[in-house]
Amino acid sequence: MMEVRPPYLGAAYYPEDWDESEEDRDIEKMLSVGINVVRIGEFAWRKMEPRDGEFDFGWLHRITDKLRNAGIGVIMGTPTATPPIWLTKKYPDMLVEFKNGRVMQHSGRRHACSNHPEYLKYSARIVEMLAREFGSDQAVIGWQIDNEIYLANNEGCFCKNCAARYRGHLRKKFGTVGEMNRRLNLNLFSQAYDSFDEVPLPRDTWENPHLKQEFLISAGEAHIDFVAMQAGILKKYTKAPIGTDQMPLGGMNYRQLHAPLDVVQFNHYNTPDDLWECCLWFDYLRTLKDRPFWNTETATCFSASTGTHGSIKPDGFCYANSWLPLALGGEATMYWLWRTHWAGHELVHGAVLDSSGREMYSTQEVRDVARDFAKCAGFINETVVDTSVAMHYSSLCCNMFETQPIVGGFRYDGSLKKHFYKPLLDCGLRPDIIDEGADLSKYRVVFSPFMITLDQGDLRERIAEWVRNGGVWITGPMTDIRSAEGTRYTDRLHGMLETLTGAAFKYWFPDNEKRISSKWRDGEDFGGNTYYETFEPADGADIVNVSAGHRAVCGDAVLQRFAVGKGFVYILGTIPDEKDMKKLITLVCDDAGIPCGLTEGDSLIVSPRTPVKAGSADEGQLGGADRSGVILVDVCGRGGKYRNKAKYRDIISGEVFEDDIKVGPYKVMVLEKI
Amino acid sequence: MMEVRPPYLGAAYYPEDWDESEEDRDIEKMLSVGINVVRIGEFAWRKMEPRDGEFDFGWLHRITDKLRNAGIGVIMGTPTATPPIWLTKKYPDMLVEFKNGRVMQHSGRRHACSNHPEYLKYSARIVEMLAREFGSDQAVIGWQIDNEIYLANNEGCFCKNCAARYRGHLRKKFGTVGEMNRRLNLNLFSQAYDSFDEVPLPRDTWENPHLKQEFLISAGEAHIDFVAMQAGILKKYTKAPIGTDQMPLGGMNYRQLHAPLDVVQFNHYNTPDDLWECCLWFDYLRTLKDRPFWNTETATCFSASTGTHGSIKPDGFCYANSWLPLALGGEATMYWLWRTHWAGHELVHGAVLDSSGREMYSTQEVRDVARDFAKCAGFINETVVDTSVAMHYSSLCCNMFETQPIVGGFRYDGSLKKHFYKPLLDCGLRPDIIDEGADLSKYRVVFSPFMITLDQGDLRERIAEWVRNGGVWITGPMTDIRSAEGTRYTDRLHGMLETLTGAAFKYWFPDNEKRISSKWRDGEDFGGNTYYETFEPADGADIVNVSAGHRAVCGDAVLQRFAVGKGFVYILGTIPDEKDMKKLITLVCDDAGIPCGLTEGDSLIVSPRTPVKAGSADEGQLGGADRSGVILVDVCGRGGKYRNKAKYRDIISGEVFEDDIKVGPYKVMVLEKI
Amino acid sequence: MMEVRPPYLGAAYYPEDWDESEEDRDIEKMLSVGINVVRIGEFAWRKMEPRDGEFDFGWLHRITDKLRNAGIGVIMGTPTATPPIWLTKKYPDMLVEFKNGRVMQHSGRRHACSNHPEYLKYSARIVEMLAREFGSDQAVIGWQIDNEIYLANNEGCFCKNCAARYRGHLRKKFGTVGEMNRRLNLNLFSQAYDSFDEVPLPRDTWENPHLKQEFLISAGEAHIDFVAMQAGILKKYTKAPIGTDQMPLGGMNYRQLHAPLDVVQFNHYNTPDDLWECCLWFDYLRTLKDRPFWNTETATCFSASTGTHGSIKPDGFCYANSWLPLALGGEATMYWLWRTHWAGHELVHGAVLDSSGREMYSTQEVRDVARDFAKCAGFINETVVDTSVAMHYSSLCCNMFETQPIVGGFRYDGSLKKHFYKPLLDCGLRPDIIDEGADLSKYRVVFSPFMITLDQGDLRERIAEWVRNGGVWITGPMTDIRSAEGTRYTDRLHGMLETLTGAAFKYWFPDNEKRISSKWRDGEDFGGNTYYETFEPADGADIVNVSAGHRAVCGDAVLQRFAVGKGFVYILGTIPDEKDMKKLITLVCDDAGIPCGLTEGDSLIVSPRTPVKAGSADEGQLGGADRSGVILVDVCGRGGKYRNKAKYRDIISGEVFEDDIKVGPYKVMVLEKI
Repeated sequence: MMEVRPPYLGAAYYPEDWDESEEDRDIEKMLSVGINVVRIGEFAWRKMEPRDGEFDFGWLHRITDKLRNAGIGVIMGTPTATPPIWLTKKYPDMLVEFKNGRVMQHSGRRHACSNHPEYLKYSARIVEMLAREFGSDQAVIGWQIDNEIYLANNEGCFCKNCAARYRGHLRKKFGTVGEMNRRLNLNLFSQAYDSFDEVPLPRDTWENPHLKQEFLISAGEAHIDFVAMQAGILKKYTKAPIGTDQMPLGGMNYRQLHAPLDVVQFNHYNTPDDLWECCLWFDYLRTLKDRPFWNTETATCFSASTGTHGSIKPDGFCYANSWLPLALGGEATMYWLWRTHWAGHELVHGAVLDSSGREMYSTQEVRDVARDFAKCAGFINETVVDTSVAMHYSSLCCNMFETQPIVGGFRYDGSLKKHFYKPLLDCGLRPDIIDEGADLSKYRVVFSPFMITLDQGDLRERIAEWVRNGGVWITGPMTDIRSAEGTRYTDRLHGMLETLTGAAFKYWFPDNEKRISSKWRDGEDFGGNTYYETFEPADGADIVNVSAGHRAVCGDAVLQRFAVGKGFVYILGTIPDEKDMKKLITLVCDDAGIPCGLTEGDSLIVSPRTPVKAGSADEGQLGGADRSGVILVDVCGRGGKYRNKAKYRDIISGEVFEDDIKVGPYKVMVLEKI
Repeated sequence: MMEVRPPYLGAAYYPEDWDESEEDRDIEKMLSVGINVVRIGEFAWRKMEPRDGEFDFGWLHRITDKLRNAGIGVIMGTPTATPPIWLTKKYPDMLVEFKNGRVMQHSGRRHACSNHPEYLKYSARIVEMLAREFGSDQAVIGWQIDNEIYLANNEGCFCKNCAARYRGHLRKKFGTVGEMNRRLNLNLFSQAYDSFDEVPLPRDTWENPHLKQEFLISAGEAHIDFVAMQAGILKKYTKAPIGTDQMPLGGMNYRQLHAPLDVVQFNHYNTPDDLWECCLWFDYLRTLKDRPFWNTETATCFSASTGTHGSIKPDGFCYANSWLPLALGGEATMYWLWRTHWAGHELVHGAVLDSSGREMYSTQEVRDVARDFAKCAGFINETVVDTSVAMHYSSLCCNMFETQPIVGGFRYDGSLKKHFYKPLLDCGLRPDIIDEGADLSKYRVVFSPFMITLDQGDLRERIAEWVRNGGVWITGPMTDIRSAEGTRYTDRLHGMLETLTGAAFKYWFPDNEKRISSKWRDGEDFGGNTYYETFEPADGADIVNVSAGHRAVCGDAVLQRFAVGKGFVYILGTIPDEKDMKKLITLVCDDAGIPCGLTEGDSLIVSPRTPVKAGSADEGQLGGADRSGVILVDVCGRGGKYRNKAKYRDIISGEVFEDDIKVGPYKVMVLEKI
Repeated sequence: MMEVRPPYLGAAYYPEDWDESEEDRDIEKMLSVGINVVRIGEFAWRKMEPRDGEFDFGWLHRITDKLRNAGIGVIMGTPTATPPIWLTKKYPDMLVEFKNGRVMQHSGRRHACSNHPEYLKYSARIVEMLAREFGSDQAVIGWQIDNEIYLANNEGCFCKNCAARYRGHLRKKFGTVGEMNRRLNLNLFSQAYDSFDEVPLPRDTWENPHLKQEFLISAGEAHIDFVAMQAGILKKYTKAPIGTDQMPLGGMNYRQLHAPLDVVQFNHYNTPDDLWECCLWFDYLRTLKDRPFWNTETATCFSASTGTHGSIKPDGFCYANSWLPLALGGEATMYWLWRTHWAGHELVHGAVLDSSGREMYSTQEVRDVARDFAKCAGFINETVVDTSVAMHYSSLCCNMFETQPIVGGFRYDGSLKKHFYKPLLDCGLRPDIIDEGADLSKYRVVFSPFMITLDQGDLRERIAEWVRNGGVWITGPMTDIRSAEGTRYTDRLHGMLETLTGAAFKYWFPDNEKRISSKWRDGEDFGGNTYYETFEPADGADIVNVSAGHRAVCGDAVLQRFAVGKGFVYILGTIPDEKDMKKLITLVCDDAGIPCGLTEGDSLIVSPRTPVKAGSADEGQLGGADRSGVILVDVCGRGGKYRNKAKYRDIISGEVFEDDIKVGPYKVMVLEKI
């Protein structure tokens, strides 16, 4: 592999869209700005294979050679998102079918169905040809499979191949149609089927929520298999890390998707309004693989699929945004795109350079990023994020809330971020976001809001054991109130909660209007919202009780703490308002002996860094240095204060601190302990 | 028939969805809560007929036997809303076709077209089989045909059978296509047809409003015939009363629907925000049949087709809601449902018990209802609601406002409720809501707002005669401005109003912005909204005149009273604002000698009760008691005062009153005159 | 031609919808109200040709004869918008296909595709038959082709004939498919095609913006050809002026449409809220043809396709609205419609008479209009609007903003009106609105906002020459940033701006949140919005510079003036706020020596009138009078003041003024210089 060392600062580059005469100037300009990696190839199938079976990689070798000579690394994309017209024309039934029966057309992206046998065959062939050509090219430091491969329209494809896969999925899951009828209660509404072939796709009728969930799972697995197929081919030809670039938006099982892959690749276009939300995904991505993730796409200034969104960004936003992945466990920031397209879709999307080849207003900040990445490269490469706090995120739960909403208007993603994740950030904590498959042993505290089902492998047992061994588990509301298929229990509300803790569940109900009032044991008001589960107050366990709202629930407990083995379980019966969530976090941190409240304000995030551990993937390549510290990023542009008592040097500015540290708007500090 | 006497407190029960082992516990629990009736069977076609022509009623006999033994009555539903997959598979063209050409799928309810000959044949067969089995079962105290049989998507089915029926309907109505062209002015836009077969269904083009209206009528009649067909079969086997459970939402002609039926069955899911609106339907339902109606469905706490709506209900809401049908002329309150489904659709809908078998927060209120129904059973059964005030409601007018809106944004239902019905309630009156076919002779006062056509049989003549005999008719705005087909008159605005009263119409126009100002004769301001008709002020007849807004209408009358024979006609040229509507009601009540203003506040409803009349259906079964009184229900939760001068005992509390009576939030008083 | 002289006051009349017995009364009433022209025939195809090839014009002759005898002129409409059912039945594939594949039905209007060969054949035949019958009828003073012929659903028809035309259009434009691929950069997303036949229609996939634009052009040309075909036939039989009635809403190229036509016909239904916006269209229409335009449709009171919109209009609104076209260069105001339909669509639309034959509240204002048109006929006919200020409007640019939005939320039409046109009106100016083909030589000042492309024929050269000869050009933002195909330049942002002026472009970016602050050279704050282009401040050229918002743009110029030859170019880098736009207009008027600020308030419009020029179309028919003056119309109902120094007589009131003139709400003054 060519000697391009992380951290990577990159951009997407589409030489196929430009005159050859622009190439040298573009590369010169990349060097001048400080770009050390480019992503190429992802949509260029037709240029690689202009006619069925006729391949032309000459142009791609030319540009790869030029980049290699310039010392710029290449991430090579497989072009399967954009099959050429000769292929769609040959197999018109490979086009994705929408829910309403309409069929996608050639002209955008991802219009081919991942279940179509001929599309799969042709995809395999172009991937293999590409891999053969570039698998051992020293310029190629990584591979990207396809691009943003999500369920079409967030609903999936409804073509006959997808129908067949779905019915096969049901057959595999339930064995017999009778078993499916029984487990999903298909006697209801006389829905029961006599054959799997009769099960309709979830189109526009009033759908069964459990079948709809299975359809989403089946549709997601089609993509997962498609990616795995490509990964299998690539591995025959290359040692460079392989990934697929995605935004983790509900739907797909990311653990399953990444099983055959080497590196998590992630795209985002967050803005000043919601940059903090993006931290959640970074906190999640670093837990999926041992290897630092790559932020494969983000905007330099504004994004625009059709018409720009928002306004000119504040000073420093591009800089802070570019640093965020590195602060939170990644090793690459790449912009989409190097140079705005001169024609076609997304014509006004921001880039490093404008389509005219001139700089954009944010280009200088990109230069600053390049300079400071270089300064901090050693520290970044030799340390990792380390924390003992985690929060659960589950794509299955996310899907379940979509297929069977519990409270009207409630969205899993939004509430998780706003009501749980943001208060954790504001308390100066750095949570790992973990899925249901993650190992819990490294954590002292785990938050599990809205884990509507825990019926996932041995998860219940693992949680129970972890608590008994000393874990502090904050769970609820809505913990484990569904089976894996999304059905309810006929003899209890919660799968395991009462058994584990001795809590006695009473009622559940929505509360969108804040009819219910509650109080902490100390007499302070407690605010909850949206949804409630109430419990018989357990002796000494109750922390918050209902004080008013309805005769039937007055005095019931809404938040209780139970000692379980060496650990604690906090059962949360509602979604706390912000100040009460922070009060709860403080209580929990006390239980677990975790320092809390290290920041002032609600704008700053803290990322503690410890040395790369013995045995970790990168260890061999690093020196014996035992560096540690903390990275601060102001993500909301309001600035903040870090309550510091240690001695740190900011590698970027060179400044040394021994006391509280003030951080300006969109400033970044890479503080190494000295 | 088994000895279960009204009032009925019931719930929908779906034994087909539960393990047999749950049945005994469920029945025990019903007895403990106080349920005396359950509705079963309505969606269980497949369980009754698992394969074409193979019937299994064993399970249904078992549960019916158990219920009979427990002293719980059964309302047996015909399962035609949910044809099994083997039937839809055999006749795929029986699926409902939507306006846009999409076809419903198996997986919800009412996906079969009521016009499909084979669906009708199979429906008849299952109904007959069911009736044979249970027609003489002593447990079965009533029958319910199908469930909530409305026009698909509020628009109707567009399949070829429905098209044929629609064209047949036109042929029957107009005789020749030339006559249709002429009467509907189809020269306009060169629309005229040469054959009925050419008339398109009203899909997504700019439709002719009159043809669209006929389509709605034809679609409604398909359902009416379907229900009548089932009623005909059931009557061969049972003496128990037969109905079909509905929400009276526009569309269908309820008088025609109920002609072959015995009892009106009604479902509603109103909430604290709109419980008062539901009173209008109860006031309507009791006028359709001599027999007390059944409230077949309402929620114990929250409803949820997908995700719960709203919040926990206030204390007492379930109690007041449960009493409302009984107060207003019904004899049954039934909850949907007994126990929340453990899987499938509507998974979080409130019920008497949660799917876990545990009580919900509202269960105690259900118990209170059972206890108090029992206390008041005699009084309820031996008295009826009696009033001399009525208000017109017309499904034809409702349809006409949908197919040819008059003023943008105006909705018939909403304005009728808000601008006419609520002020009547607030004045302490108890109006009968009557359709165009109702006899007027028992009323002293009739309000007829928005009766856009009176071209319905002999209605005009009957109204005129009733007024001449002393009736007080408050009519308008928009009275009789269309023929039965929805066309306008070419020589006048109103069909009969000028002739009847001598009023001289001048202009009509919209006024959504309150540009027009008017004054009462006494100089007070009068507020009108949305729409105006103005008249030449008649000598001594004018009450309200336009004072400002536009030169052309200044001085015109907006509200006039005309003496006609022994009666009066109030012509109302606009929609009065609340305070002015109340002032008008007071004037009218003076004319008619009706006491007005019996309540204080806007939360309480009053239902006067007089002895069941000689000759009425129930008489034979009742004692000779001559009981009377009044039932008060606080429907808005704000409490109120009843201005009382008589001596009453509240049967529920035992308290005796001789003076003003204060009623707390969601309280009910059953006051018997003593 | 019959002796009906302009100005015309007319109405649409549909004798085919009424009983013959109503005709004489209707015509009498027309005379009494003062109507001198009626439009007939436009939707009566079936009445003219009841069966294929059987024609009946007897009824139309009868009514035309009666009108001629009454001295009322006729505008005869061709009925091609409403093919009869026998035709659609014969060729069902002539029905328009929507984007989503759904096909329009018989029952509304314009359901036939302008590209269908048989529809064209039958259209030609009915037009020829009608022209033969009435081509030399003295009553017929004009012809109207079809009615409001726009792209179906604003998107066009997607049938196979339209597909073929579109592909033919591409072939004609690009020659080879390779050239199309190259010029539109179809390598992007591997979109490139191997044959024109493969290019999909722009339905519901993520579409290529350039291809979508070509589709809109092709769809517009289908209509243009259809109109031209009819005009060709009509010209063989008539000397009366021919037009087609339209609302100029984006989309079609109006210059191309009107090439074969004689008179511009225009429909509008503006209300008190937006009557001023309508002035823009009138200012545009008078520039398209030498002959005064006709306002073929407007409402007397309220309009209503389904349900009335809005409220009763203020006193005088109908009067002012009726005068507006005459003030701004037209010679006809016609109402839609004479008498409201008694059945069918648009049943509650306002008219001169109600369907009952009675007057509506606005009828008296129509009488006033007739009286005052007569008083002012000589002045109107002998003068024309004259101005030296113009503003560009381009249907191509309008389409381009739709197919490739630049800033999210920005709409070309709305911003043009609000941010540029209204300030011009408020400064008392009377701009001509001109398209890209218009001659510039008569103007001293031209505003060109949002002219996203100037790549239209020799437009760039003509502008440059005009400036060098002394023109004052205010251009931007977004001037010439696209080629005619909508692609960007790869070496510059603006096609010609830097070359012409020496300006040095730096950055462009959106600003929907007003993050950017700027200042005039005099230190006053300058407000811009939505979008920015910034420039290196040129020596002495800068007027407005960025003062804050983002480090990278501080100090950049946003508004600069460059001397070019004898003229000036103002480059505007953003959309100025209202006060700043007015300040700019004042500066510009100073440069050009144009009086500015003649009105007070924001409600009044000013239309300067000069004698009809020698050689103009109407000259021969007019006397030698050399009349001039100004017409004032209060369009917003708030009244205003005209800062007058000349001596004028108001022809309507007879009043004489030598000083400032106050104009009341919705008042009109026709001031002749004396």
